[in-house]
Amino acid sequence: MQNLDTGLAPVAVLGLGLMGRALAEAFLRAGHPTTVWNRTAAKAEPLVAQGAKLAGSPADAAAAAPLVIVCVADHDAVRELLDSLGDVLDGRVLVNLTSGTSLTARETAERVERKGGAYLDGAILAAPQGIGADAAILYSGPRSAFDPHEPTLRVLGAGTTYLGDDHALSSLYDVAVLGLMWGILNGFLQGAALLGAAGVKATAFTPVATTGIATVADWVAGYAQQIDDGTYPAPDATIGTHLTAMEHLVHESESLGVSTEFPRLVKALAERAVADGRGGDGYAAMIEQFRTPAAGARA
Amino acid sequence: MQNLDTGLAPVAVLGLGLMGRALAEAFLRAGHPTTVWNRTAAKAEPLVAQGAKLAGSPADAAAAAPLVIVCVADHDAVRELLDSLGDVLDGRVLVNLTSGTSLTARETAERVERKGGAYLDGAILAAPQGIGADAAILYSGPRSAFDPHEPTLRVLGAGTTYLGDDHALSSLYDVAVLGLMWGILNGFLQGAALLGAAGVKATAFTPVATTGIATVADWVAGYAQQIDDGTYPAPDATIGTHLTAMEHLVHESESLGVSTEFPRLVKALAERAVADGRGGDGYAAMIEQFRTPAAGARA
Repeated sequence: MQNLDTGLAPVAVLGLGLMGRALAEAFLRAGHPTTVWNRTAAKAEPLVAQGAKLAGSPADAAAAAPLVIVCVADHDAVRELLDSLGDVLDGRVLVNLTSGTSLTARETAERVERKGGAYLDGAILAAPQGIGADAAILYSGPRSAFDPHEPTLRVLGAGTTYLGDDHALSSLYDVAVLGLMWGILNGFLQGAALLGAAGVKATAFTPVATTGIATVADWVAGYAQQIDDGTYPAPDATIGTHLTAMEHLVHESESLGVSTEFPRLVKALAERAVADGRGGDGYAAMIEQFRTPAAGARA
Repeated sequence: MQNLDTGLAPVAVLGLGLMGRALAEAFLRAGHPTTVWNRTAAKAEPLVAQGAKLAGSPADAAAAAPLVIVCVADHDAVRELLDSLGDVLDGRVLVNLTSGTSLTARETAERVERKGGAYLDGAILAAPQGIGADAAILYSGPRSAFDPHEPTLRVLGAGTTYLGDDHALSSLYDVAVLGLMWGILNGFLQGAALLGAAGVKATAFTPVATTGIATVADWVAGYAQQIDDGTYPAPDATIGTHLTAMEHLVHESESLGVSTEFPRLVKALAERAVADGRGGDGYAAMIEQFRTPAAGARA
């Protein structure tokens, strides 16, 4: 009851898994009148104790607020939920924070728009603990749907970012960042395996690895600018110089008996860049190898 | 001449390429009496103007200081240089900062020790601009050789780190960090290629990528501890959850027509971990996939 007089915009949260509950809690803590729904109503109890209103159906929940947040298990659950909403989305903004692909984002957008609603697809780049704090959350869809609700959405994370009109953008950025994440983790694991085979503990590698990550993080902005400019000067190391060191990584991995798959791929990509005449360019010229499927995969 | 009365330990620097000159300059700036030698003597001129003494031969240079730094083009140049030194290394410490492998480190150690010298193998994880400033430089070899010269070596970089007795360690750490670096850069390039195919500029990806890198950097210490402990709890995402998202990365890359090699390797490694019963573990359990050559490569 205490939420009704805050003057803040009401919100509805559909789906109260670990992440959905974190979203609803952040809204409640910020003082937004919050209506919740979950297939298993029991999960709503701690939220109701914090002031949330429990709706009897998804349609009832959505009817309670101009901004409807969906965070369920997967795309099938999203589709099912939308089918049950009838016409209640008319004039409302639905924000879907369920993990998905660019394809499912476009499908969901069509479905919501057919029902007269506006659709924002979102991607949460954070654990539930980051919600209501420093979480990075990416949104894509019509700016006219994002702008009026930005202050409300910002409650969920300081890293609230609007990417553009194309509904596909948030899931594309999501997998792009995840790919970068796996690149870092796999690079660390290769190094940890290599050093481990020489009797070095992973924790001994950590400080050097962390310094290395911070160093490379500083290069990314410059390399991105080179990619956009299409010119790849090498004030630091050329791809040819990198290739020599990549051969060392392959040989050390071989002679210590650890996996060579990751080193070999790294080296194969650089070899192709050198074969393409990029040996004297900086590392950012490697973008060309990522833009095009490899010869074998092209067939 | 002004260097002779500083009371600081004399040093010799053999090899005055871009990096060798940066090393000699750092010593000169710090006030160390510095003797230099280079195959092409002209390269020494700016250093002589700063107070360096130019030696007529590598042996003359080495004879001038208890600490002899070598930084030349490659291992062959190191070998040739050592052969020309005669017995002058007896009782001195030779530090080799030329890029090499663990094999060349061990070979050079043997050679130097046969001549009565003590050997430290080093790896510079920095550009010449970082020398004398925040450069990370790793050393391995007998502690009795490192400890007395640590204050002098620290002049070259605030990130001076002693790794242990095994001469192989600095080159192993070097390729381990480089592998991590290529993992980050390739992960970034995959994301930039993917987003680029959807019309997004690489510079637009930068802020999200940089936040992502900083986030993952914070996980490394915890994962390293799990690796050393051999237990892989997953308070965040399990490998099974990662695998679902990896499938998204492969599909998005395919449908946008960019390279799928990096995504496919990432996914194949996780699939193997799941097949090994690690689907419910945290990502650090992937270390097992890096420790062992893949089935195909084992044959």
